[in-house]
Amino acid sequence: MTIIDSLEKFRKKIETEIEAIPSSDKIPLFYEPIHYINRLSGKKIRPLLTVLSGLAVGGKIENLLPPAAAVELLHNFSLVHDDIMDDDDTRRGKETVHVKWDIGTAILTGDGLLGLAYRKLLSTPNITDLIIARLFTDAMLEICEGQALDKTFEERKLISESEYIEMIQKKTATLIQLACQIGAIVGEGKDKEIQSLTSFGLSIGMGFQIQDDLLDIFADEELLGKRVGSDVLMNKKTIISIRLSERRGKPVDDIKSVDKFRELIQEYGLAEEIQSIADTYFVKAREMLDKIAPNEYRSYLYDLTDYIQNRKK
Amino acid sequence: MTIIDSLEKFRKKIETEIEAIPSSDKIPLFYEPIHYINRLSGKKIRPLLTVLSGLAVGGKIENLLPPAAAVELLHNFSLVHDDIMDDDDTRRGKETVHVKWDIGTAILTGDGLLGLAYRKLLSTPNITDLIIARLFTDAMLEICEGQALDKTFEERKLISESEYIEMIQKKTATLIQLACQIGAIVGEGKDKEIQSLTSFGLSIGMGFQIQDDLLDIFADEELLGKRVGSDVLMNKKTIISIRLSERRGKPVDDIKSVDKFRELIQEYGLAEEIQSIADTYFVKAREMLDKIAPNEYRSYLYDLTDYIQNRKK
Repeated sequence: MTIIDSLEKFRKKIETEIEAIPSSDKIPLFYEPIHYINRLSGKKIRPLLTVLSGLAVGGKIENLLPPAAAVELLHNFSLVHDDIMDDDDTRRGKETVHVKWDIGTAILTGDGLLGLAYRKLLSTPNITDLIIARLFTDAMLEICEGQALDKTFEERKLISESEYIEMIQKKTATLIQLACQIGAIVGEGKDKEIQSLTSFGLSIGMGFQIQDDLLDIFADEELLGKRVGSDVLMNKKTIISIRLSERRGKPVDDIKSVDKFRELIQEYGLAEEIQSIADTYFVKAREMLDKIAPNEYRSYLYDLTDYIQNRKK
Repeated sequence: MTIIDSLEKFRKKIETEIEAIPSSDKIPLFYEPIHYINRLSGKKIRPLLTVLSGLAVGGKIENLLPPAAAVELLHNFSLVHDDIMDDDDTRRGKETVHVKWDIGTAILTGDGLLGLAYRKLLSTPNITDLIIARLFTDAMLEICEGQALDKTFEERKLISESEYIEMIQKKTATLIQLACQIGAIVGEGKDKEIQSLTSFGLSIGMGFQIQDDLLDIFADEELLGKRVGSDVLMNKKTIISIRLSERRGKPVDDIKSVDKFRELIQEYGLAEEIQSIADTYFVKAREMLDKIAPNEYRSYLYDLTDYIQNRKK
């Protein structure tokens, strides 16, 4: 039994929480695509992190489900809008919203997901102050800034590794950090626990994105649910394109096939090198988990870290 | 001196509050179009309503400026995304964001405006609970639902007047209602005052949209800042197209020029009829204002009602 199977009962609860939004019958053009994207089979890693972080510090599941759903809805908002901007036609093996419907509908779907995310967040039973709403808003803006940087970098031939690190922190790691942080806050953890889990989230978030860059080139296409190489071939800046540019002493925009990328990565031994950068983040993540008291839920968080580190999709 | 001139000092303060977001130097692709749309010369009616509603019940200006800015940013979010969906190329006499930049940038600009709106709202100095954040979120979702209805109606030949009323209430009146409501709440008005000002906002919002439908056909194009007839010729459902369809006993989609619309409106005496529907809402709005105690700011609210009722753009 994998960790993903063990967490099935939590995933089911999260799905039920997300389903509890207005049905598609009410203004179908608005709610159908919202339900469509929410029901695409994701692993629900982010809301699971919210629930487990909260439970690990003694929180109650009924308090944790609304913010967990909010985190997933925020994630889906960014997916739908990013897919338009990147002109991606498949997501999790299915047509993206702007392909299945149209761009206008997809814009509205993303907006709706964001509104529903706030509504869920603000319904968290044991929170009456503004702290999580502020953190959520800051994270949402960071995600937008990260997407803007990602778009800006596409126009440039070379970017530095520190620019890349800033971009993935905003675009990817911030949301995973937020997931853990608001879980710990809603779980009413002590300040030290909240800090440790926030830092844990940031580290797995960074590791997650670097893995993602590797999977863009090395994953099985069917497993990945989208075209292999779609990032590097679109001139997206990934850790792979940056390190490869450095080694070759020139940009990678002349490389027109995934096979050629694989060949060069092999030649320079980059896959192992990049995996070890990701691994460093996962080591840091585990050190942060070591700081909170052991219990069943903390064990799940270690297992989830292993899973993310070794995932194939 | 018009009411718009008298309110210049408040408008300046609102503009300063809106400008106090990160500068364009920080991630230009993200912040430049945000500042561009915020600086387009709008009348700032919605944030003025927030400020005046709050002051009218004894609120402090420094508390009212952040929620007023939030209302304007929420409005601008919806303009930028709606302009993409409606493929409008001018707004307030200037190029729309997706024309000046591109669709991807305009999507991100709208998202950013919404995030900044929440950040402003959550910085309201005298509010520590979740009430205004919840109202704001409900309004944001209503606006999206209204836009979805508007899009859905474009595909249909005929819609009923009650469907139209539901659509404009969500799409337009909700935001104007919210502007007054959160002004009254942040101004720490009594429950009765909050109710009266909320109802006032709803009524002027309804009147405002019906006027807008008239202006789409009868405004001076230069004054309006966008093409005259752009709604009816795009098959948008307005009170004009609905009543005209009723009178003729058939849809209006065969009418291909604004002149022809004007001719038929004249023939059926529809302009006066529709103006009188709008006027009914403005009468109701004034009755609501009558319920709060008289002061300088309430007078401005009456004047603003007159201005909206008689506006030419």
